[in-house]
Parts: sequence; structure tokens; C-alpha cells
Amino acid sequence: MDRRDIPDTTIQRLPLYLRCLLEAQTVRMPVVSSSALAEMCGTNAPQVRKDLSYLGELGTRGIGYDVEALIAHISGVLGIDERRRAVLVGYGRFGSALLGYPGFGERGFEIVAVLDSDPTKIGTRVGDVTISDVRELESVVPATGAEIAILATPAAVTQAVAARLAAAGIRGILNLAPVTLSLANGVAVRQVCLSTELQVLSFHLAQGPL
Amino acid sequence: MDRRDIPDTTIQRLPLYLRCLLEAQTVRMPVVSSSALAEMCGTNAPQVRKDLSYLGELGTRGIGYDVEALIAHISGVLGIDERRRAVLVGYGRFGSALLGYPGFGERGFEIVAVLDSDPTKIGTRVGDVTISDVRELESVVPATGAEIAILATPAAVTQAVAARLAAAGIRGILNLAPVTLSLANGVAVRQVCLSTELQVLSFHLAQGPL
Repeated sequence: MDRRDIPDTTIQRLPLYLRCLLEAQTVRMPVVSSSALAEMCGTNAPQVRKDLSYLGELGTRGIGYDVEALIAHISGVLGIDERRRAVLVGYGRFGSALLGYPGFGERGFEIVAVLDSDPTKIGTRVGDVTISDVRELESVVPATGAEIAILATPAAVTQAVAARLAAAGIRGILNLAPVTLSLANGVAVRQVCLSTELQVLSFHLAQGPL
Repeated sequence: MDRRDIPDTTIQRLPLYLRCLLEAQTVRMPVVSSSALAEMCGTNAPQVRKDLSYLGELGTRGIGYDVEALIAHISGVLGIDERRRAVLVGYGRFGSALLGYPGFGERGFEIVAVLDSDPTKIGTRVGDVTISDVRELESVVPATGAEIAILATPAAVTQAVAARLAAAGIRGILNLAPVTLSLANGVAVRQVCLSTELQVLSFHLAQGPL
């Protein structure tokens, strides 16, 4: 089947399966059943089997999934079997913490440029990159070959920066600023808002004991 | 209807509606139509009307929703009309950035304790709190009256810390560590994993032009 037909909810669970499979690999587990994988991931076995069925004929009935093969397969579907380049825009408290986030490198993402508007930051070396002036975004970003941008900018400027990134060739944006982006088709956007997550928790608490 | 019957997907959109309504309030918009609210939130008008219909009879046909009233109503449903106390566990790069995240305070959450295991950090003052020893979690957390914990701990210790927090009376956990928590019923968990979000973006890029 065409990978574009994989449901969004399945795609969102693939990174979780991958993480659990990498844990299984660490403890040298060669094969994992759908029920064991489901337990590791906090879901159920029929869900695991259904999700993985979208990727092809992968498991062996009564035995399970080959851990190494499934890692390679999911990585291929997610397009992270090759390293992907990302730029980070906004080097405030949050942006600087993100640059040190080990999960990016471990999962195949490399931050190849950092942009900020603060003259005291521009030109300083952070990790393996030098902070660039965000006014030079249109020349800096295409030169890196990056396809992904991580936005940790102040809310008020985020929409404008995102539109400039899209025009400069960025095709995927991870937006950490608490604003909803409106962009032309062709740019995939993922929004992470921590206060939104806390509000969803709060809703569950407000209902009394679960 | 019982609020427990509101679909999870609707609950997850309520914070977004609230954010857009607060923006509308900032520009002194008294009334907002479902189509205007949908456009602000990046969704469509039937979705807005359906989501808000779970909350009761709120809008006026042909006119729209009263912005102030809808803010108050959604805040009440989310349980953020009163301030909620949270503890932060893990004061590394990521945890320290979180303490400064303005969205928490703006959305009704107060971080009332910070816990870490590093002797050089324990006892130091950060923001309005003094860092406590995570070994004293069982006495520190109940004393704060917090219901929510934000976990920015190393992956290897996160499950153990979460189980101790649940035993100490925490009822909601926002987990930022890249591990899947397994907890007894009665504790709501939200997981935010930035590398997961990047992998979902990567999937869309791997499919070629949208």
C-alpha cells in the first residue's frame, strides 16, 4: 500500500514502537511478540498488529517480530535511516536546552544551524555551530541543506519566521511557540505546547478520581 | 452530559480554542463566529461547533460565541479557573528551561517545588523555590499540596520516580523523558517527546511533496 495511506494515528505511534524496540535491542532480545511490544509501549496487542500491518507482512504468527528487522523497517518508513538536518531558530532558555537534547542526535537528527536576533548571541559558538543572525535566514538556511526547522521563538514573531523558513525551502516545522501557524500547503507542522499538555492533565484531575 | 463523555480528541483541542480566544480577547473582539475561531485555530467550523457542543448550549446561531463567556466556560471545564500546583523533578538543562517557561504561569500552573539528586544543586534557590533532595520526595511533595508533576529526569530513573510520585499523591504527570510510563490506574499521564515529533515530521518529508 501507499505509505500516504497509513493513518496519522499509526504514524504517531511508530516512533514509540521504535523506541521500545531499541530498548529491546539493548537487552539483546532477538524477537518480540505483539503482546510484549504492546506492554512495553502501553498499548494493546491488536493495536500493535494493526499498526504494523500497514507497513507490510512483518511478523511471524506465533513467534513475533524480528527486533533488528523491525527497527530497520520502521526507521525506513519514518525516513530516519539517513540523518536529517534541522535548523534551530531562537536561542533563549528553551532553545539552548533543545540544542543539548540528546534525543535529537540519537534519533537521527542533526542541528546544523542556530539563528537568533540578539546581537550579543550572534557569532558565538554553541555546540558545533555558530549562532547566525536571523535577518540572514534566507541565505543561511538554504546553505545548510536543512529540511526541518525547530522554532523556539517568541510568540509574536513566530508566524513571520515560519513563513520565511517555508519560503527558504524548509518542509517540516516543529513549533514550540504557543501560536498556531498558518502556512501554505507543502509544509508539515508539528506543534508542541507544554501548557496545553498541562491543561489536558488538569481536565482529567478536575473530573475527580479516574 | 457527563464531562467524562467528552472525547479525548475534543479535550486536546480545548486548550487550543482557549489560546485563540485569549488572543481574540486581547484585540477586544466581543464575539467570535465558529468559522473565525476555526481559522484562528487551523481547523474547520463544523469541528469547532461539534467540539463546543459537548460543553453545552454555548453559541447563538448566526452570531457566534461570546468571547469572555466561552473563555470562562472552557477554563472551568479544564479545571484551570483555579491555580494548580505542580512539582518539577529534574533540574538539568531541560528542567531549568521549563522552570522559566512563561506559558505555565499564564495558564494557571504554579511550580511549587523542584527536586533533583545533584548535591551541588540541592539547597540552591531557583525562581521562588529551593531545590529539594529527590530522596525526600515522599515528604516534600505531599507538603506542597501539588497534584501535578513535571518529569525532566534521566530516562533510566523516570519510571521509578513516577511510581514514587504516584504513591506520594500525585494524580497527573507530564513526562518529558523518552520512556513510556507504566502506572496504576488513577494517575493521568501526558507524554511529550520532541524526538518523536521530529520523527513524525520526517515521515511526512520522506513521502515527498505533500
